[in-house]
Amino acid sequence: MISNAGGMRAMRIGVVAPSTPIRPEVAGEVVALAARRHPGVEVRFHPQCFLTHNHFAGTDEDRAEALIEMANDPEIDALWFARGGHGSCRIANEVLARLEEPARRKTFLGYSDAGFLLAGLYRHGIGRIAHGPMPNDLVREGGGAAVARSLAWLVDGSEASLEANVDPAKRAVAFNITVLGQLLGTDLEPDFDGHILMLEEVSEYTYRTDRSMFHITSSPAVRKVAGIRLGRCSLVPENDPEFGESEEQVVRFWCERAAIPYLGQADIGHDSDNKVVPFGPFAK
Amino acid sequence: MISNAGGMRAMRIGVVAPSTPIRPEVAGEVVALAARRHPGVEVRFHPQCFLTHNHFAGTDEDRAEALIEMANDPEIDALWFARGGHGSCRIANEVLARLEEPARRKTFLGYSDAGFLLAGLYRHGIGRIAHGPMPNDLVREGGGAAVARSLAWLVDGSEASLEANVDPAKRAVAFNITVLGQLLGTDLEPDFDGHILMLEEVSEYTYRTDRSMFHITSSPAVRKVAGIRLGRCSLVPENDPEFGESEEQVVRFWCERAAIPYLGQADIGHDSDNKVVPFGPFAK
Repeated sequence: MISNAGGMRAMRIGVVAPSTPIRPEVAGEVVALAARRHPGVEVRFHPQCFLTHNHFAGTDEDRAEALIEMANDPEIDALWFARGGHGSCRIANEVLARLEEPARRKTFLGYSDAGFLLAGLYRHGIGRIAHGPMPNDLVREGGGAAVARSLAWLVDGSEASLEANVDPAKRAVAFNITVLGQLLGTDLEPDFDGHILMLEEVSEYTYRTDRSMFHITSSPAVRKVAGIRLGRCSLVPENDPEFGESEEQVVRFWCERAAIPYLGQADIGHDSDNKVVPFGPFAK
Repeated sequence: MISNAGGMRAMRIGVVAPSTPIRPEVAGEVVALAARRHPGVEVRFHPQCFLTHNHFAGTDEDRAEALIEMANDPEIDALWFARGGHGSCRIANEVLARLEEPARRKTFLGYSDAGFLLAGLYRHGIGRIAHGPMPNDLVREGGGAAVARSLAWLVDGSEASLEANVDPAKRAVAFNITVLGQLLGTDLEPDFDGHILMLEEVSEYTYRTDRSMFHITSSPAVRKVAGIRLGRCSLVPENDPEFGESEEQVVRFWCERAAIPYLGQADIGHDSDNKVVPFGPFAK
């Protein structure tokens, strides 16, 4: 186990990897960063984070058991997902079925593929949910700031960590476009009613984002949102021929068709500037 | 207009391109192939097939108007979609809203991105719908056989063109996995109840097929199918690390979780061997 345990702790943050593994040296650096910035806080990486099984951080069973163990541990205050990729959807329903009372008092933080879990937890009203940078974001250029941003929010509820449009008077949710598309209509679909839906994307052709936005904005559940904001769409592969519309034009197009207000940009994305978006009513 | 018109015609097949354009020389070869094999049959390519607008075969308006014009033309017996790609979902709802009586007597044939249209037509009970090779399949190696297979089915209802598991006593539908995922929950979602659902995929990472199959098999509507058959998944990009499960293992995995019978392979795919799958009760 990689952690800065020892002495009395003001807070314990557990880290599990529901999708793909994180390297132990990256985990070690995250622990060191946390120790410098928040001396009273323990960041505890579950050994499962370093397992590998084909594409995943261990088998489905490994990943589910680690998540359930830490989520149900009353000594852990927050669960931080190590990294995205793919794999959460394979364990989400089993995890949700086995969460107990201590999970309800926790904060859960992550984004990208972890969105499957965040959505399911939010749907079932389990814990305090937020989109935000994950430990493995440390490997990005400027990733230390991203990791520090999430830690500051987890530990101190730092307002500086929040996406600027997060508003105490409004409810929000934030998802990766592809992940959101793949959880619509499943048991993980959250409540969108009256929410500001913030979206972001990475490594997808614009034509694919166009097709995903058709799907997303056609959902009667999604059409109940108060509006959509678009975060950054990064590493877009070059379309041949040129797609001729930007991601923002695409999102505006589908919002208009679905009579969903397009509210402008959001300061989220697969990058070091990615901000924290607490789901639901903003809890200071 | 590229067509083998002239004299009395036993049958007229109209071709439109709801997604991406086909080259005029390919259209010309398809017309020539049809003239050789079925002298009494006219294959008429709408000029819209050759338009280009960014990614698409003309603007949304161009594509919708051409499709509506040919679908509502009482002198045309069948509508054959020229090619897949992306674009059908942008026009499908408008097209469906404007189809008139002559469209109801037509056969509609295509696959891949055309699946958005096939699904919506089938949902609304408009025409006779089938998955099968399209004119632009001519450019594939051995593509002449694919095009001839669809023509033989359109003109003579050739049983040799049919996927071998198509059964007069059972209802079937066939879709590309990604396209099906993106139309679930939309106004294009067809009736799956009691149907054999045949699936195929092209150019998708196995992890993406895994994620799509979570989505598809989680749908309560899809769970009403009589069973799933998997066609060919071709041009799968190499996963890093290796995914460790084949597409068939992935589909079996999700079928088992969803208590959907997995019925074995289907003889469909993005290739020259792709067979015809009429939707719904098999009409000889």
